[in-house]
Amino acid sequence: MSLPVTAKVPFGGDYNPEQWPEPVWAADDRLFELASIDTVTLGVFDWALTQPAPDVYDFSLLDRIVDRAARQGRMICLATGTGAHPAWLARAHPEVTRVDFEGRRHRFGQRHNSCPSSPVFRRLSAELARRVAGRYADNPAVVAWHVGNEFGGACYCDHCAAGFRQWLRERYGTLAALNAAWYTTFWSHTFTDWDEIEPPSALTEHWRGPDHTAFQGITLDYRRFTSEAMLTNFRDEKAAIRESSDAPVTTNFMGMYRPIDYHRWAEHLDFASWDNYPPEGCSPAWLGLSHDLMRGLKGGQPFWLMEQTPSMTACRDVNPLKPPGVMRLWSWQAVAHGADAVLFFQLRAARGACEKYHGAVIGHAGRADTRVFREVAELGAELRRLGDASLGARTPARVALLFDWDSWWALEMSDGPSRLVRYQQVVLAYYQALWDAGVDVDVVAVTADLTGYDLVVAPALHLVAGDLADRLAQVAQRGGSVLTTFLSGRVDVDGNAFLADVPGPLAPLMGVRVDEWDARAAEVVNPVCLGSGADRFEVASRLVFELVVPQGAEVVGSYRADWYAGTPAVTRNSYGAGHGWYVGTALDQAGVSWVVRQVLAHHGLLGPYPDLPGLETTVRVAPDGTRLLFLLNHGTETVEVTATVAGVDLLTGARTEVGRPLRLDPAGVMVIRG
Amino acid sequence: MSLPVTAKVPFGGDYNPEQWPEPVWAADDRLFELASIDTVTLGVFDWALTQPAPDVYDFSLLDRIVDRAARQGRMICLATGTGAHPAWLARAHPEVTRVDFEGRRHRFGQRHNSCPSSPVFRRLSAELARRVAGRYADNPAVVAWHVGNEFGGACYCDHCAAGFRQWLRERYGTLAALNAAWYTTFWSHTFTDWDEIEPPSALTEHWRGPDHTAFQGITLDYRRFTSEAMLTNFRDEKAAIRESSDAPVTTNFMGMYRPIDYHRWAEHLDFASWDNYPPEGCSPAWLGLSHDLMRGLKGGQPFWLMEQTPSMTACRDVNPLKPPGVMRLWSWQAVAHGADAVLFFQLRAARGACEKYHGAVIGHAGRADTRVFREVAELGAELRRLGDASLGARTPARVALLFDWDSWWALEMSDGPSRLVRYQQVVLAYYQALWDAGVDVDVVAVTADLTGYDLVVAPALHLVAGDLADRLAQVAQRGGSVLTTFLSGRVDVDGNAFLADVPGPLAPLMGVRVDEWDARAAEVVNPVCLGSGADRFEVASRLVFELVVPQGAEVVGSYRADWYAGTPAVTRNSYGAGHGWYVGTALDQAGVSWVVRQVLAHHGLLGPYPDLPGLETTVRVAPDGTRLLFLLNHGTETVEVTATVAGVDLLTGARTEVGRPLRLDPAGVMVIRG
Amino acid sequence: MSLPVTAKVPFGGDYNPEQWPEPVWAADDRLFELASIDTVTLGVFDWALTQPAPDVYDFSLLDRIVDRAARQGRMICLATGTGAHPAWLARAHPEVTRVDFEGRRHRFGQRHNSCPSSPVFRRLSAELARRVAGRYADNPAVVAWHVGNEFGGACYCDHCAAGFRQWLRERYGTLAALNAAWYTTFWSHTFTDWDEIEPPSALTEHWRGPDHTAFQGITLDYRRFTSEAMLTNFRDEKAAIRESSDAPVTTNFMGMYRPIDYHRWAEHLDFASWDNYPPEGCSPAWLGLSHDLMRGLKGGQPFWLMEQTPSMTACRDVNPLKPPGVMRLWSWQAVAHGADAVLFFQLRAARGACEKYHGAVIGHAGRADTRVFREVAELGAELRRLGDASLGARTPARVALLFDWDSWWALEMSDGPSRLVRYQQVVLAYYQALWDAGVDVDVVAVTADLTGYDLVVAPALHLVAGDLADRLAQVAQRGGSVLTTFLSGRVDVDGNAFLADVPGPLAPLMGVRVDEWDARAAEVVNPVCLGSGADRFEVASRLVFELVVPQGAEVVGSYRADWYAGTPAVTRNSYGAGHGWYVGTALDQAGVSWVVRQVLAHHGLLGPYPDLPGLETTVRVAPDGTRLLFLLNHGTETVEVTATVAGVDLLTGARTEVGRPLRLDPAGVMVIRG
Repeated sequence: MSLPVTAKVPFGGDYNPEQWPEPVWAADDRLFELASIDTVTLGVFDWALTQPAPDVYDFSLLDRIVDRAARQGRMICLATGTGAHPAWLARAHPEVTRVDFEGRRHRFGQRHNSCPSSPVFRRLSAELARRVAGRYADNPAVVAWHVGNEFGGACYCDHCAAGFRQWLRERYGTLAALNAAWYTTFWSHTFTDWDEIEPPSALTEHWRGPDHTAFQGITLDYRRFTSEAMLTNFRDEKAAIRESSDAPVTTNFMGMYRPIDYHRWAEHLDFASWDNYPPEGCSPAWLGLSHDLMRGLKGGQPFWLMEQTPSMTACRDVNPLKPPGVMRLWSWQAVAHGADAVLFFQLRAARGACEKYHGAVIGHAGRADTRVFREVAELGAELRRLGDASLGARTPARVALLFDWDSWWALEMSDGPSRLVRYQQVVLAYYQALWDAGVDVDVVAVTADLTGYDLVVAPALHLVAGDLADRLAQVAQRGGSVLTTFLSGRVDVDGNAFLADVPGPLAPLMGVRVDEWDARAAEVVNPVCLGSGADRFEVASRLVFELVVPQGAEVVGSYRADWYAGTPAVTRNSYGAGHGWYVGTALDQAGVSWVVRQVLAHHGLLGPYPDLPGLETTVRVAPDGTRLLFLLNHGTETVEVTATVAGVDLLTGARTEVGRPLRLDPAGVMVIRG
Repeated sequence: MSLPVTAKVPFGGDYNPEQWPEPVWAADDRLFELASIDTVTLGVFDWALTQPAPDVYDFSLLDRIVDRAARQGRMICLATGTGAHPAWLARAHPEVTRVDFEGRRHRFGQRHNSCPSSPVFRRLSAELARRVAGRYADNPAVVAWHVGNEFGGACYCDHCAAGFRQWLRERYGTLAALNAAWYTTFWSHTFTDWDEIEPPSALTEHWRGPDHTAFQGITLDYRRFTSEAMLTNFRDEKAAIRESSDAPVTTNFMGMYRPIDYHRWAEHLDFASWDNYPPEGCSPAWLGLSHDLMRGLKGGQPFWLMEQTPSMTACRDVNPLKPPGVMRLWSWQAVAHGADAVLFFQLRAARGACEKYHGAVIGHAGRADTRVFREVAELGAELRRLGDASLGARTPARVALLFDWDSWWALEMSDGPSRLVRYQQVVLAYYQALWDAGVDVDVVAVTADLTGYDLVVAPALHLVAGDLADRLAQVAQRGGSVLTTFLSGRVDVDGNAFLADVPGPLAPLMGVRVDEWDARAAEVVNPVCLGSGADRFEVASRLVFELVVPQGAEVVGSYRADWYAGTPAVTRNSYGAGHGWYVGTALDQAGVSWVVRQVLAHHGLLGPYPDLPGLETTVRVAPDGTRLLFLLNHGTETVEVTATVAGVDLLTGARTEVGRPLRLDPAGVMVIRG
Repeated sequence: MSLPVTAKVPFGGDYNPEQWPEPVWAADDRLFELASIDTVTLGVFDWALTQPAPDVYDFSLLDRIVDRAARQGRMICLATGTGAHPAWLARAHPEVTRVDFEGRRHRFGQRHNSCPSSPVFRRLSAELARRVAGRYADNPAVVAWHVGNEFGGACYCDHCAAGFRQWLRERYGTLAALNAAWYTTFWSHTFTDWDEIEPPSALTEHWRGPDHTAFQGITLDYRRFTSEAMLTNFRDEKAAIRESSDAPVTTNFMGMYRPIDYHRWAEHLDFASWDNYPPEGCSPAWLGLSHDLMRGLKGGQPFWLMEQTPSMTACRDVNPLKPPGVMRLWSWQAVAHGADAVLFFQLRAARGACEKYHGAVIGHAGRADTRVFREVAELGAELRRLGDASLGARTPARVALLFDWDSWWALEMSDGPSRLVRYQQVVLAYYQALWDAGVDVDVVAVTADLTGYDLVVAPALHLVAGDLADRLAQVAQRGGSVLTTFLSGRVDVDGNAFLADVPGPLAPLMGVRVDEWDARAAEVVNPVCLGSGADRFEVASRLVFELVVPQGAEVVGSYRADWYAGTPAVTRNSYGAGHGWYVGTALDQAGVSWVVRQVLAHHGLLGPYPDLPGLETTVRVAPDGTRLLFLLNHGTETVEVTATVAGVDLLTGARTEVGRPLRLDPAGVMVIRG
């Protein structure tokens, strides 16, 4: 199974006509036409509607909704409706709700509120998916199935405790193996019966919060268990759908979302999709990283942008508007990174509850003459003109960046050396450097095939397991470069320290050992001098300062201050035909970029416009080999560059020639078919 | 029923001789005489004393206390004593304690600790009130009854859940109506049985705290229910008192206290009273607003200042002293705004527990030669000289400011656009502008009669219900002005967005529609240019920036920055013989004052000294028509102004003549009978 | 019973070979030899190892560990192993875990996890101690017993509630006495049955946290009860040990640790020991104060430094390295203040769980060529050279500083005047002044014999009980000086205010009364002018400003600002042949030092180098009368001073002569036997 088959980039989004009287539906249809909206996601929270009582299923309203959308010629992404359970279910089966990290059993409320281990939830959610799929599988307008909604969170109930113990039995076989993995000799923790094991929570191993645990091994396994328990929920529903439908099945991911290891989920989805709600003020590279991570889930296959707001969010303390052009720019950025659909949450604004002020294509007054509607309609027209040009196109990256949930978890729950190091920030700094340089990047799992890459960047690869160290060494062996950083190669699959010099199994490739490491408050800066001679370049380093002892590596940069002034901080090791780069501290962005560009230059991988901040370039190659060059101006100034390819801008029809100027206004976009 | 009948402003406060051996009582009496203290509030926390066991009532000590006070000629405000329940009650009936927002059943401790829905609490508190009133009703020294103490907080127990469901049945009649009001189609929330409904708490609809709810409608109703459940407690006791006494009944309110909708309580009190503990560093206008809100509860009838500290609080992280003169100044300010009593907490300092460092008229050493005692005694003498001059006097305001608990709740629990907007701050900015201009203001409920006002100011009127929009329109129709602001006219009585242009039902009066609205971090400023030509005036705006599209209104001010520079921010609409003013952003105080003074000037309402910051003027008109002009200098500099009325300063006996200079030292007060 | 008998300062620390395969033990032994490590603390968390099931004790592995250490000639500090209970115990007896301040019963996890009142915990922990002692008492390598680990925390379960009530019956005898002590007339709190009494927690008397209580008396008593309940645990185990062993028994304290009143524990320990993990960035005086407090526990008897990290901690947000020389410097500082052992946590780094990144003598790679190992080995060699020179030596202090847990508790749980005043900061400011002046100080309990001191400093002595005021007066009577500060002399043993002028029973000695006191935000400074004439010196004061009215005392300093400018802030009262000094506000360090040096100069107590910041000097006098002068340079600059004694530097063998220069590099240490 793969992506839904469509003739163009689907455009539309979440739509809840069940919240409205039917006259509104007709008004919506007229507005959808105006905006070229051809796709609707239906029924994401319809459980209470479609199963109003334990033994009653009622699809009459959903029938009318689906029929109408189909009649209007719209594609339907149809949800199973299990994103929230109904009130009657919580009352009849209180165990269907979750027990939180503080040990409190919740009662009915909010959404994403079901215990993933609850037998009744598992049975009824699958049954609902079975009935929805059975009813609408033959409707050709239904191009995709949408299971649940933004899976996430965690539960600490007795069902989950039992599930965890069973999961542990399967993982470890014996208590002896489990005790070894969890290092339970420490603090008198030896388990002598499976039933002694408790979920790690505020009432057991944790203090202050989910990242402060007495036993990293236990918490690491509970995160794995939770991620897999929810995957089981997804798989329950998918299997039920498959009984009657072969249409592609997805669920909407959330980009860099820590609780769920999307890499372990990916094989079970037919295609990836995600909801793009970036944090306020993030750099465009943050969005690029998220898109590339999502594209990497299915081996580079395009994904769907399942949700984005046309204008503003509601759930934050402060919810700014997207200024004119930004919604369009970010939509095209998604396409540039591999999106084969552009969808919004939501098409019509809810009247009540906590998302009533969330942006919508159609606001409470139902007008077409708003700025937001106008921009949506313009984008709809552009995507109509694009046709199928980008569908199925792939990104020809020669650089891989490793993104690893295990390392993320292990690093951020570690006691020592520094809680100030955040996995995403380290990863983003290296991605930003690549983005600035205009390089296409595959963001992939540690289990991915690395044989095709010239450069593999592995920031903060705290946990190293399996044959990863060997595969990284092979990259260098055959002439490639591998770059890793401070706090990499520290722990094994169980979160236990390697009994070896730091960076553990990466040490031979890196040609260094780290003797000790300092950690300092956020405001402490140690200057690092990079390069030598005329190329010397001083940058700032912060947070963690590893004292690197070269074991064959050459010194690229050294600390300039504190009692370890002169100690190496950045090194390069010749290994086989290639290199291992080690960066032993959190360099500032200028420092990270300097190092990354050294490596890129070595491999001739710098993009066409590496010195224009804010100008993003990506390439996609269509199944027929056609090359699409995307240029996006995220800056606030007009940019003028010299074309490096000849082709046609698919948005304007204008031709470009090599050597001729290209001009992009702020928020400007070009899609040059070369 | 109305205010207690007194011959002068009662002066004294909370007094707990039950905490002391009788010799101390005699010492107190001597000190009370020195300080002209003629009123004592007795028994506020006497439940454990007067009912030491389930079937035992023992009034012997209270008898002696009441008798002694009466013999000494003091007026008594006698409490029912139910501000905290006894330990034996919590042990015998654990359900009498509250379940908190986190779902935790409390055990015996603190005060204000009774579940308002507990049947045993309701029965026993009313019975105690019945017995107290029955015992002391005939004592002529008892001039008022004081029920409970500072009603507040909330409970989330099963009794309250049942009470909430019953309240909802009465409000909505059918689940269909409730589901519509709460917009439960959203997130699969349709209720199919009343018993599925849970109190909205950290275990159900909330996250982060009481203002973050998935369903605004549910939480809004739970706030209403809670406020009414406690009102029922008050009414239980009042009814029990009425069985034997016709003396006026009150309870001590807390000014702008969010959990209790005092407007809905007001009709059930015979007179309003409140405890004035302003936040550290607040402006004098904050106090004025609070007083005016309290005066507005009973249609302008004077209120009692039931508590204030003579010197310092104890419950805050930092508890500064009131500098010399400030206690007096604030006492007179209370009178200036309608107080017909000036009382303290507390007359003698407790030795132990959490209020032992709270300021008191008599400290632990029992001295009369302290600064605090001296200032109290001087004030006592002044009030004695004042006699009955101010009793029953009314404030002749032509400006009304709407204060609305529903809007307060709805605005601050809203997801989007900005959690940084605080209802009190918006209201205070407009009140401050009026206060600076020296205008008497009635702070009233949205249900108040508005026909007598020239100007109605409705800041942040988020929720608009009933015929309010019509009544506001009528104000303008007949030549008055109505001023409202950003985030007004957004939701209906259920908290659901109006399906119309913003500001909903206020749009015709305002002659605008708001197309969209930006929200930004606290430090982001957008300059707004007000006025035109030589009168142009640039001020700052913050937090929320509504993009106003005039629909007939004239533009008074526009944004100067960001992508919506030039867009209208402030407008004035001609409507009937009057105007609707719309302020689409949080202007700084200079901006708010500029707008407010435009309107005041139009109606000729500027006070006599509008340009002297810190000088407060108010007017009260005695029942016989005598006009009292209060002048209070809150500034740190001496102020000299020209008298605008002839009369006598009741504090000094000095005569003033029109055109003659008046001089007020810092913290100076004049009460000119004109 | 007294200190363990050793021939030199024991050197080594916590060692957990049960976490490792035996080949590692041999490697450790070789490294221990290299580092002169002669002492190991074994079995601190061995409960699950030595009692793997309810009725099974298995000492086979511990036998091998103890035997090997003994064979290698190492001294053993042998733990009972009860620092954490085993998982099987928590499952079999859920009541063995604690109920936290929030009322939540915990399940198995972490450490220090046993309810101190749990009968099964008390029975089994004592039984384990009995068996451990019985088995190893005859092994001459075992020089000391180590009970539990870092006793602390609190429990709020029903067993503790029952224990609390029993403790209260014994303390008060009658409910009438208890009600009087707790001032329960306030807020209707009169208890009529012992079973009505609840532990003061978030569910009863507290809000915001453990320091915010409605009833200071209740919380004060619960702290006392908790401290004593854990002492009972210690005593249970000690008594069980005594059945077979006379070797000294200790437990590792934590310096200034608020929950446990070490003064009340001290008589039950044979010798004091403690774990030195100072807060990041603290001054060296903070460490000195902690050492002196620990030395004061047993009347000046030397103590053991039971734990310190050789390099870094793990449990903090940021865990910096100790720079070169600092571990050695702080080790010598411990000895300088009375330590007769220098031990580390830990000898070999754990692989897993939350202390895997905690510093260790031997790291994960097992190397001897690390900086940390090298510094440890050098210190080991130095201590070997020192031999028995310092063993049993005493500090000849003529200054006592009172440290009082009751005052600490009472002050910080007080409502009003200021939560910003922290007991430790006030104490530290006065200790710092003494430290800067180079004075040896005994830090003692309020019950200590004060007759031997010239100066008694009693900062923030909030609670004054027993005959303390008399004993302080006697110090002055015979010519000594007593110095106390703001917020002293406020409450009695129950936390109730004295019915007298402030500072209560200290008023006659101080010759002042405090009329009132202001409190202000942290950033508010009131300058205080100290001294007179040419010696006038202006310093800053903050937080609390007591308005001091001299009653015979002379004014030493006065406020310069605010409405109380000119009011006395610092006074000196002649009393008998001596003086009472009163400091009514939180002077800055310069101000505190100015005052302290006035007093020191009066008594001729200034140290030899009072004007060299960072240079610490202490004296110890060996049992044979030999005098050891310790000089430690905590500064970052080399210091050169003139020797005031002749002698030999025991670290280098170099001789010093009076008047000859002494030179200390940064982190330099001298131990001059004079």
